[in-house]
Amino acid sequence: MTTTAPAAAPGRTATLRVTKGHGTQNDFVLLDDRDAALDLTPELVRALADRRAGVGGDGVIRVVPSTALPEGADVLAVEPAAAWFMDYRNADGSVAEMCGNGVRVFARFLEQLGLWDGAGELPVGTRAGVVRLRRVPAPDGTRWYAADMGRWHLPGGQRAADDGFDSEVEVAGLDVARPALSVDLGNPHTVIALRDEDELRAVDLTRAPQVSPLPPHGTNVELVVPLGESTDADGRTVGRVRMRVHERGVGETRSCGTGACAAALAVRTWAGAGAPDVWFVEVPGGTVRVTSLPDGHVELAGPAVLVADGSVDLAAIGA
Amino acid sequence: MTTTAPAAAPGRTATLRVTKGHGTQNDFVLLDDRDAALDLTPELVRALADRRAGVGGDGVIRVVPSTALPEGADVLAVEPAAAWFMDYRNADGSVAEMCGNGVRVFARFLEQLGLWDGAGELPVGTRAGVVRLRRVPAPDGTRWYAADMGRWHLPGGQRAADDGFDSEVEVAGLDVARPALSVDLGNPHTVIALRDEDELRAVDLTRAPQVSPLPPHGTNVELVVPLGESTDADGRTVGRVRMRVHERGVGETRSCGTGACAAALAVRTWAGAGAPDVWFVEVPGGTVRVTSLPDGHVELAGPAVLVADGSVDLAAIGA
Repeated sequence: MTTTAPAAAPGRTATLRVTKGHGTQNDFVLLDDRDAALDLTPELVRALADRRAGVGGDGVIRVVPSTALPEGADVLAVEPAAAWFMDYRNADGSVAEMCGNGVRVFARFLEQLGLWDGAGELPVGTRAGVVRLRRVPAPDGTRWYAADMGRWHLPGGQRAADDGFDSEVEVAGLDVARPALSVDLGNPHTVIALRDEDELRAVDLTRAPQVSPLPPHGTNVELVVPLGESTDADGRTVGRVRMRVHERGVGETRSCGTGACAAALAVRTWAGAGAPDVWFVEVPGGTVRVTSLPDGHVELAGPAVLVADGSVDLAAIGA
Repeated sequence: MTTTAPAAAPGRTATLRVTKGHGTQNDFVLLDDRDAALDLTPELVRALADRRAGVGGDGVIRVVPSTALPEGADVLAVEPAAAWFMDYRNADGSVAEMCGNGVRVFARFLEQLGLWDGAGELPVGTRAGVVRLRRVPAPDGTRWYAADMGRWHLPGGQRAADDGFDSEVEVAGLDVARPALSVDLGNPHTVIALRDEDELRAVDLTRAPQVSPLPPHGTNVELVVPLGESTDADGRTVGRVRMRVHERGVGETRSCGTGACAAALAVRTWAGAGAPDVWFVEVPGGTVRVTSLPDGHVELAGPAVLVADGSVDLAAIGA
């Protein structure tokens, strides 16, 4: 607020510095709390994430020293170099463990703050443990960020890997239930293949897909259309997939990091022996790259964009 | 963007100062273009208004000297004191004439910029002509802004005023069509009364209400529940109404300024002779006050909140 005009509301004039950023249109309000001085209450999170009365975002991400949180101390015991902790909050104020798109934006934000020089590997503390990131070149020459998303597995085991399916999913707009493959990335996913992009466009995800059997804690559902394989500039064979996603408890979103990984890993499973390890996944919010790593981990690479820096009037958002 | 880290995208590092504000949760990206130096293309408007990849808003509002636009020259011919023009753009990049909530936020923004001292009357240039505003005290002691929204009338004429109805509306979730009253505020509105707040909560506005006869250019539909009358601190009788609104071509919104006026004027018509001239209208995004003025005009008063000031990276939003 300016000082030339009297404040509209009496009393508080405190402001909070914020940055707005997104990864494939999964968007966040970012807070630099390097001194661990901020009392980030659920009310403040909700007020900041409010898209009309606040700044707006799918979540709020706070940069805080790992030493400042008990969860951070756990991380430091495993990886002493994980100096910065990603304190991720959902828009409803609740605490979340990790966010595949958010952690890239976190790395980009650390760079902007001068807390990471962008060289080598960046270990980030999260409530799901240490996440390791690095800068990588994007296909279009811009800069992407790659995060090791950890181990993945097929809950249906070798049988599901051989059959390609372990469940089925009904989606509004499709005539019959489709065979589906469950993929676990720390959180549950169920992937079905559609015939073509027209069919993908036509399905109605305003209603939750019906999964049977439904996993005990529900599941995210990915609808994919394999777009074939090609050879990249380095001579590697890479696959391409288009995807829409219904996130459990949320609805359709423009991007889901672990969902993109699940989609690529399911299509790779269906493709069988000799399938590429690298898959570009086109989500409504952009494109990410999923790589199956030799150690059983999966890597998610994609853009991280910082859109605006600003100052929020805390009284104006009722916080 | 900082200068310590190399920019993520090569080339442009231009930034644009923006302010985010809202009136009863009708929210806007505000631009100070007092020097008329900005090329506000539809592409830039869309990029700024994008809620995930940009800043986010229902529209973009530019402060520009009335002398800088042909529409401004028309305004100055009528009101030489209308120095500042509200250049309002919809989120889709199209030009709009006026916005009842936006013009209050425009006045608040002029105050913050030091371009209005808040005293007396502020004539604002708009594509719908001069709009006159003033600061007024809100019931809770905060500051509101009141805008003269101009002349209103009942398209159904005296017959509609006597009958109280001139059309009917079907709404999903209601068993039968309800009698409705058309109210014109420069744009078309159709108002129906519901039984109580439970019924208002229960109706489904994800589907457009069916109005018959439908006006040639469509209509906004207001669903209202009269909440009775009371005496305010000054001894005046004031009415109270709760409302939901379906905006033509948009869907349900959290607030519509002319819709609140139409709702109050319809309920006042139904209440007949001796009805109050002042009505508080509770919309999902807050409360506004509608006053029927003796000269056949209607005044809309309500809050205008500036939430954040910041700087947008134009390359990051692709603009």
